[in-house]
Amino acid sequence: MKQYVFDFSQGSKQMKDLLGGKGANLAEMSNIGLPVPAGFTISTEACNQYFLDQKTISAEVKSQVDAALEELQKQVGKNFGGSPCLLVSVRSGSVISMPGMMDTILNLGLNDQNLEGFAASTGSMRFALDCYRRFIQMYGSVVLQIPMFNFDEIIESVKHENNVVTDQDLSEEHLRSIISQYKAVVVQQTGSEFEQDPVKQLYAAIEAVFSSWNNDRAITYRRINAIPDEIGTAVNVQMMVFGNTGDDSGTGVVFTRNPSTGEKNIFGEFLMNAQGEDVVAGIRTPKDISELETVNKEVYNELLRSADLLERHYNDMQDIEFTIEQGKFYLLQTRNGKRSAAATVKVAVDFVNEGLLEKEEAIERLDLSLIDQLLHAEFDKEVLKKTPEIALGLPASPGAATGKIYFDAESVEEAAQKGEDVILVRVETSPEDIKGMISANGILTARGGMTSHAAVVARGMGKCCVSGCQDIDINESEKQIKVGEHVLKEGDYISIDGTTGKVYVGKVPTSNVDLSEDFTTLMNWADTFSSMEVFANADTVTDAENALKFGAKGIGLCRTEHMFFEDDRITEIRRMIVSQTKEEREAALENVYPYQKEDFKKIFTAMGSRSVNIRLLDPPLHEFLPREQKEIAKMATVLNLEESVVKKAIEDLEEINPMMGLRGCRLGILHPEVYEVQAKAIINAALEVLEQTGVVPNPEIMIPLVGSAQELAVLRARVVAVKQQVDPENKLAGLKIGTMIEIPRACLVADKVAEHADYFSFGTNDLTQMTYGFSRDDSGKLISQYVQDGILKVDPFSSIDQEGVGTLIKMAIEKGRSQKPDLKIGICGEQGGDQNSIEFFNTLDLDYVSCSPFRVPKARLAAAKAAVRAFKSTAVTL
Amino acid sequence: MKQYVFDFSQGSKQMKDLLGGKGANLAEMSNIGLPVPAGFTISTEACNQYFLDQKTISAEVKSQVDAALEELQKQVGKNFGGSPCLLVSVRSGSVISMPGMMDTILNLGLNDQNLEGFAASTGSMRFALDCYRRFIQMYGSVVLQIPMFNFDEIIESVKHENNVVTDQDLSEEHLRSIISQYKAVVVQQTGSEFEQDPVKQLYAAIEAVFSSWNNDRAITYRRINAIPDEIGTAVNVQMMVFGNTGDDSGTGVVFTRNPSTGEKNIFGEFLMNAQGEDVVAGIRTPKDISELETVNKEVYNELLRSADLLERHYNDMQDIEFTIEQGKFYLLQTRNGKRSAAATVKVAVDFVNEGLLEKEEAIERLDLSLIDQLLHAEFDKEVLKKTPEIALGLPASPGAATGKIYFDAESVEEAAQKGEDVILVRVETSPEDIKGMISANGILTARGGMTSHAAVVARGMGKCCVSGCQDIDINESEKQIKVGEHVLKEGDYISIDGTTGKVYVGKVPTSNVDLSEDFTTLMNWADTFSSMEVFANADTVTDAENALKFGAKGIGLCRTEHMFFEDDRITEIRRMIVSQTKEEREAALENVYPYQKEDFKKIFTAMGSRSVNIRLLDPPLHEFLPREQKEIAKMATVLNLEESVVKKAIEDLEEINPMMGLRGCRLGILHPEVYEVQAKAIINAALEVLEQTGVVPNPEIMIPLVGSAQELAVLRARVVAVKQQVDPENKLAGLKIGTMIEIPRACLVADKVAEHADYFSFGTNDLTQMTYGFSRDDSGKLISQYVQDGILKVDPFSSIDQEGVGTLIKMAIEKGRSQKPDLKIGICGEQGGDQNSIEFFNTLDLDYVSCSPFRVPKARLAAAKAAVRAFKSTAVTL
Repeated sequence: MKQYVFDFSQGSKQMKDLLGGKGANLAEMSNIGLPVPAGFTISTEACNQYFLDQKTISAEVKSQVDAALEELQKQVGKNFGGSPCLLVSVRSGSVISMPGMMDTILNLGLNDQNLEGFAASTGSMRFALDCYRRFIQMYGSVVLQIPMFNFDEIIESVKHENNVVTDQDLSEEHLRSIISQYKAVVVQQTGSEFEQDPVKQLYAAIEAVFSSWNNDRAITYRRINAIPDEIGTAVNVQMMVFGNTGDDSGTGVVFTRNPSTGEKNIFGEFLMNAQGEDVVAGIRTPKDISELETVNKEVYNELLRSADLLERHYNDMQDIEFTIEQGKFYLLQTRNGKRSAAATVKVAVDFVNEGLLEKEEAIERLDLSLIDQLLHAEFDKEVLKKTPEIALGLPASPGAATGKIYFDAESVEEAAQKGEDVILVRVETSPEDIKGMISANGILTARGGMTSHAAVVARGMGKCCVSGCQDIDINESEKQIKVGEHVLKEGDYISIDGTTGKVYVGKVPTSNVDLSEDFTTLMNWADTFSSMEVFANADTVTDAENALKFGAKGIGLCRTEHMFFEDDRITEIRRMIVSQTKEEREAALENVYPYQKEDFKKIFTAMGSRSVNIRLLDPPLHEFLPREQKEIAKMATVLNLEESVVKKAIEDLEEINPMMGLRGCRLGILHPEVYEVQAKAIINAALEVLEQTGVVPNPEIMIPLVGSAQELAVLRARVVAVKQQVDPENKLAGLKIGTMIEIPRACLVADKVAEHADYFSFGTNDLTQMTYGFSRDDSGKLISQYVQDGILKVDPFSSIDQEGVGTLIKMAIEKGRSQKPDLKIGICGEQGGDQNSIEFFNTLDLDYVSCSPFRVPKARLAAAKAAVRAFKSTAVTL
Repeated sequence: MKQYVFDFSQGSKQMKDLLGGKGANLAEMSNIGLPVPAGFTISTEACNQYFLDQKTISAEVKSQVDAALEELQKQVGKNFGGSPCLLVSVRSGSVISMPGMMDTILNLGLNDQNLEGFAASTGSMRFALDCYRRFIQMYGSVVLQIPMFNFDEIIESVKHENNVVTDQDLSEEHLRSIISQYKAVVVQQTGSEFEQDPVKQLYAAIEAVFSSWNNDRAITYRRINAIPDEIGTAVNVQMMVFGNTGDDSGTGVVFTRNPSTGEKNIFGEFLMNAQGEDVVAGIRTPKDISELETVNKEVYNELLRSADLLERHYNDMQDIEFTIEQGKFYLLQTRNGKRSAAATVKVAVDFVNEGLLEKEEAIERLDLSLIDQLLHAEFDKEVLKKTPEIALGLPASPGAATGKIYFDAESVEEAAQKGEDVILVRVETSPEDIKGMISANGILTARGGMTSHAAVVARGMGKCCVSGCQDIDINESEKQIKVGEHVLKEGDYISIDGTTGKVYVGKVPTSNVDLSEDFTTLMNWADTFSSMEVFANADTVTDAENALKFGAKGIGLCRTEHMFFEDDRITEIRRMIVSQTKEEREAALENVYPYQKEDFKKIFTAMGSRSVNIRLLDPPLHEFLPREQKEIAKMATVLNLEESVVKKAIEDLEEINPMMGLRGCRLGILHPEVYEVQAKAIINAALEVLEQTGVVPNPEIMIPLVGSAQELAVLRARVVAVKQQVDPENKLAGLKIGTMIEIPRACLVADKVAEHADYFSFGTNDLTQMTYGFSRDDSGKLISQYVQDGILKVDPFSSIDQEGVGTLIKMAIEKGRSQKPDLKIGICGEQGGDQNSIEFFNTLDLDYVSCSPFRVPKARLAAAKAAVRAFKSTAVTL
């Protein structure tokens, strides 16, 4: 006979699938000798059987429940529905907690008959009546599905009639009146009297829990989160204990360590003669847990012992609920405690130092979503509460920023120079806005997704950004934004949270968190476990310095185009673009050359002998041309050209789908001189740094947007020719020439591409874009909707699409390494900083991931976690 | 010992790899008893050995050449360089003929000593001198690499000094003077006397042929055409025969059948006392070959016998060169004869009817590039010669068209209504131009590639189109075009050739070719061999009728959006797009519904029970909105909206990369009512046609742009719901719901997609676009350049990229059929009409290909060819 019902003594924390999370933990605590109110769990299999049997509880399950109830009464020496009166709680407990499911019914077992006896045993009729009132209300709404307002109306009218303010002030008489009115509601709504048989109450509650597994909200939630329908929920039936039966009773909540700082000190509150909900409700002020020692030293010590035991047992800081019933200490719940980012780090390091955890376990356990908080500003929580939230965009780059809004890069710069805090607000940003982005505290855009220009650049700068905020109507020419009724003009304050995507109207102070020593310790441990290295995407020497500060092993992506926008270079670039002949183009490029060389020298000097992977020019040329009439006129004047010539050049470069147009290596092939000058600048910069410092820089030259081996072959040959010319003595013997793998076709012919490549770097942004056919610039709204509808589990630009894009990546790696077994392979798309993606990349045996400098620490931890997990799963397989 | 040298008696047509094409054919003719001047071939292996040996002819090869030369002298009873004098020709002959390689040296073996004897044996000193003069010139330029102008100057100055006009009029004395001057040039340029030793002449010529295999032009040609370097070239050494040694000598060229009409009659010309080049030069008028009978009946009969023998032997119409030397008939060359499209068809059918060929061979042999000529107009060749060609664009849709140029759809329509011939000229076309395209004779655009809007729509209409003509500067607002010095205004005549991409200024008459009975016979044979069916892409009832006329088995792609542009529908579509609520949108769609239903009814009625695969709305909505200010104002008035509201709607829909934006099934998911109304129109149309005709229509509903199984699952469920509602009696029980496979990701997850699809239709245009990252609208110029540079072998939008896109298609088919073994799979991209692509698709076991109606005949033949080849290769394998 299959066992469907398990006494707490029969379960363990390993039995989550069968007993649900709550049931497994109650059993576990019970079995390590902690004082848990007795009870039993009805398994998830019983739930599945219930649905198989057309929503009836089978005789087999019933007989086991009956037996468990019998046993429970014996254990606690009480009588269910009799005297001394045993009351129980009935709680759902699935493996994964799900909103919309039935949660809890307390005080089950009470009826008109045993009420007196129960009152006598607790010494308070008012208490007993209040329990009964609550029970009818909970059972009525949850089991009988009577809308809650029916009960609320009654209690409110009784309070009103009797000038009573809080529930606590209701007298016995009031409660009796409420109970009789509640019962009348039950009759009126269901046609039957309120159930008086405790056993029938119990079975009705169990059925209600089972049924809630398949209510609409739960089904929708499962569908969206890809939770299988067949895992089912367990039901926990547990003896009630009461903290509000007198001054020797009480209740409290503690953390085993300080959840804000991580300090090793029990932390929490308690209230005597109170129920759990009283602590939360805030009507009486709870006391600091340390005061419990003077109230009841024995209980206090038991709490300390339990806390210590649980921490050691679960190897993690615990969040514990306890109740004292007439001097007896009970544990009601334990779970891993939520904690701040700072506490996360400190607890992890302390646990290792205290010998409670191995380093790899500490790392595997880390909740990396907290790491961002350590590296970015946060809003003052109190001020934030009072600030109106007006819109929700995409959390494009984490952090919090507040400032006056300006609508163009120039105004932002001017305001910032005056010392103002500024937020740059644009429909969408383009490379022309870079200087404004540098000066702003944060960036807000109405269009574009997680990998739009604004998002990518902001993350690179570690700057807060909310992108794709469709709710906001931005009018750049009138310099104002509209959101609902709010109209904000240039100079008005807003605050944006790049971690949540929320936008607030007004000023909210922000605070920074300093990086602790523990953080450094943890990061260093992490690196010892990782099998992938973490590189940074860094375009400037500032980026490079940040990259080193955050522990990047090198630069995995240095985009040369961003250099083109600074100072006077843009003029020369524009001159190059409008050139009619190869000679003119070369002359313009020669003017850019010294700038590029100096930029590279600075980066090489900063990075020493670490590798610096430089991508040759990638974006379509029109990105370098002005879009507004004023700017066009200015450009014509500067270049000494007719305005019509400039306009014609801009028109000629216009493309309907620029992302799939003339960019990347296609530019390099059509205009050989562009890549040749860049290669010359890189190689000469390296040679000069070598000359000046004695250290051999380690540049790598990367060809973007390759779709066929032929393209790479042609361009590699040209770079090699430049190398031979510029470095005839071959001082940079190790110079590598590699390619981005970002066009789906490149994955399909990766073996042939590998013939001409020293390394592959997956550009997962473009690869995702083309594999899915989702324009990075346009698909923000669509993707949000898809995620909301459950068509997509997650934005594939944030976390790699393992099924689709991942298959292409795998294929490319296999093909590439079939040609060159030692081919170095990394990734430099935005997903390089995402935890799930990193775990996936780790399974593919990549050499490195590269991400924005500010995401490097998280990526280092994620890489370490992935390696530890991979090791563990191998160990298990072996 | 390896055999490097083969007497003609030792070779055969199967030995092309070793002997080259020319050598193998000379041997073949020789062996079937035809009178070929004796000779031998030095094999391609000898060429490779030559390069392996650092460009020296090995002793082994040398000894074999010497022996062959000895044998040749014995065979013909002449003495090489002696008396009677044997002269030879030396010709290259690779497996694949290549421009830039050395071609021919004639009269080799002549020197100062044997000249007299040679003159005596031919009876003409002038003739002998002319031969010697030509030999020195050819040998000097080809073997000694002396620039040709050195020789040209001498001959011209002699003519000038002596008032001689043609070479024929040069006297013996003139020739002697020329020869001595030629020799002086040789000394001056090389430092040595002109070689007098015939054997040394021969070896120098052989080395020159070998070396030319690796000259720059040949190497480049091989690289571009992916011809392996190691196949090498053979060298043919053959006894010279002369048609110009008197009135009993002569020369001629004949086709075994009429190359224009295919009629079974020997066709060609001859000249007595002449050399081959005299026939071509046109100084004397050649005579019709039939007159040879009276000149030399014996020779004439030998020619007829040879022609018949060669036709039967090669199973194809032959193009033959012959020479009569002093009454003796020699064959110098035979090859498959080039012929017109009409002749191609007639010859193929006649050969089968004459029992010379099996049907499948006739089909396998067909040169399909000629088929287009049969279906499209051609220019009058004589007028064309005198018409200036001003530009070259892409041959987007075959045919020839002439007319006055107009720059917008409205003007085109007006002019066409007045009876004018019109060419629509646009920078690029959009769906708004459809009516203009219908009225125009042809379409010329400056932008866009082979699958741009103009190209696709024109091919669908069977209308001539030249797209992506970058040379032309089109100014739509000033209504004029500039090309070089030419300025053309509205109303000026141009002529465009969509088969070649050429653009001419002025009017050129065009002619149509009627389809012959033979053509129908051939097409019917073809269908019996094909394993894939050919469907047509057809959006209207006119298209559907064309599809049937050209033998399509059904409609493989019916695009519903084109229906939206006609009449008043566009207004309702626009109303739908600017709707703010679901209700407004539904109301607007209800107005479109009757139009759509009527359109479908017409198509279903035309197609009977054949399948009609209808794609639900695919393009981004902004394509339906006006772009010009005037049109925007008009739209605002018609819809009774503020102009600013219309502008805002247009702006909101603007996308940076619309091809990867909100289109296809994404629209269907975000606006369920759009697909629901379309499904309703399709199903009700089918039910009404069934009611009216008693025939059950066979509609198939296709969801475009699917990237994940979830998208298809959601939309399929909605279509099924509409079906259940509209057709409760399930009269259309066979209704299939399928999907386009056109997003790379769909290929990668095709097994999951197949769970929800009754069929797959590969949209190879979009699939190519995204796999390559080549925007169809923008990449025309880039792709031309890539093809020119040899980076791409062929435009992947014209002929499927088997290596990249093909791999994805294969994967999708495997995955799809792993889920559903009987899954119907077809293709409906532009490559569905391309011969090489069809052959590739045939190997993938596709059920059908679908292409424009006008490409159906060619596709049917291509499918048949592919099946015949596949069968043959299987047979060989077995």
